Amino acid sequence: MNDQDDNFGNAEPVPREISSREHAARLLTAPAALMQLSLVEAKIVVSYMRPDRVPAGETFIAEGDTDNTGFMMLLLDGEVIVESITVSRTHPVTTAVLGPGSLIGEMGILDTGPRSASCTTATDIQCAVLTREALEAMIAEQPVIGCKFLLAISARIAERYRDTQKKLKLFARLASTMQQELDKSK
Amino acid sequence: MNDQDDNFGNAEPVPREISSREHAARLLTAPAALMQLSLVEAKIVVSYMRPDRVPAGETFIAEGDTDNTGFMMLLLDGEVIVESITVSRTHPVTTAVLGPGSLIGEMGILDTGPRSASCTTATDIQCAVLTREALEAMIAEQPVIGCKFLLAISARIAERYRDTQKKLKLFARLASTMQQELDKSK
Repeated sequence: MNDQDDNFGNAEPVPREISSREHAARLLTAPAALMQLSLVEAKIVVSYMRPDRVPAGETFIAEGDTDNTGFMMLLLDGEVIVESITVSRTHPVTTAVLGPGSLIGEMGILDTGPRSASCTTATDIQCAVLTREALEAMIAEQPVIGCKFLLAISARIAERYRDTQKKLKLFARLASTMQQELDKSK
Repeated sequence: MNDQDDNFGNAEPVPREISSREHAARLLTAPAALMQLSLVEAKIVVSYMRPDRVPAGETFIAEGDTDNTGFMMLLLDGEVIVESITVSRTHPVTTAVLGPGSLIGEMGILDTGPRSASCTTATDIQCAVLTREALEAMIAEQPVIGCKFLLAISARIAERYRDTQKKLKLFARLASTMQQELDKSK
């Protein structure tokens, strides 16, 4: 990733940056269940983020990584492939393709656990990066907005958890059906 | 559940309540990854909760319920069985047994989605209930503490998501192995 120190808040107000900032804020106001961020509040969240670009083909989050967990990002433009090696143990399996509006790496920033999957840019991407330090600063300086942002993140993690749980139930049924087939064929 | 209007904050300071309140606060300070609640802060969280008791054998959260999602609870004493009917479609399967310190129903309070499993008391339980309204009041009145509490909840949801993801990977491998067995037996 480019190492830019400017964040959205300090960036020069050239039209490109303004548009990107507005775009980031709009993506953050996407319906959350509880105490949704207003556009004004989402812009304050974005002011704690740093705009960044990653070229196509770069694996910027590596599955199992425990060191590089201090940031999350909001994807503004482009596509990211999420892959996991652990499913087959031999080759990575694509588990998702993410587009604009997706949050990436938010679990690592919350619980500092190892990265659960690898993320590789399928195209050049534009994104907004939030570091753990910036999140802590937002919570200290703008705690109500911090709460709303955390609610939005939690709701997305909960949604993903529900999806995974559904898949798990399907697999459990599949395994049970296959076991019956195997028993029959013996 | 008993319909008590008193919350921990307003409850008369009889020793029993103090002890229960202290106990609840201690359970909330259990290590979270980021910006952990201090005991003093956890007591403020607890002051937004309402002590409650549920007798053994009561299903107080029903899988799929979309109406009764406006509360979560911290289990203080006793055990709760988590069951899901969706795994087998015919009879409920126990997916977890929860003890003191467990948070129950926190996803529903965050995203207002349907309850993902049923919860039944295995013993008489004591718990501390946090309603969505109380959570919103805490965020408005004590936003920094609200943020820390939300971080703690998010970290727990993230942890559970990671667990489910691991199980999903195991099932995916199991299904793949079974498919090979089935192919061989044809």
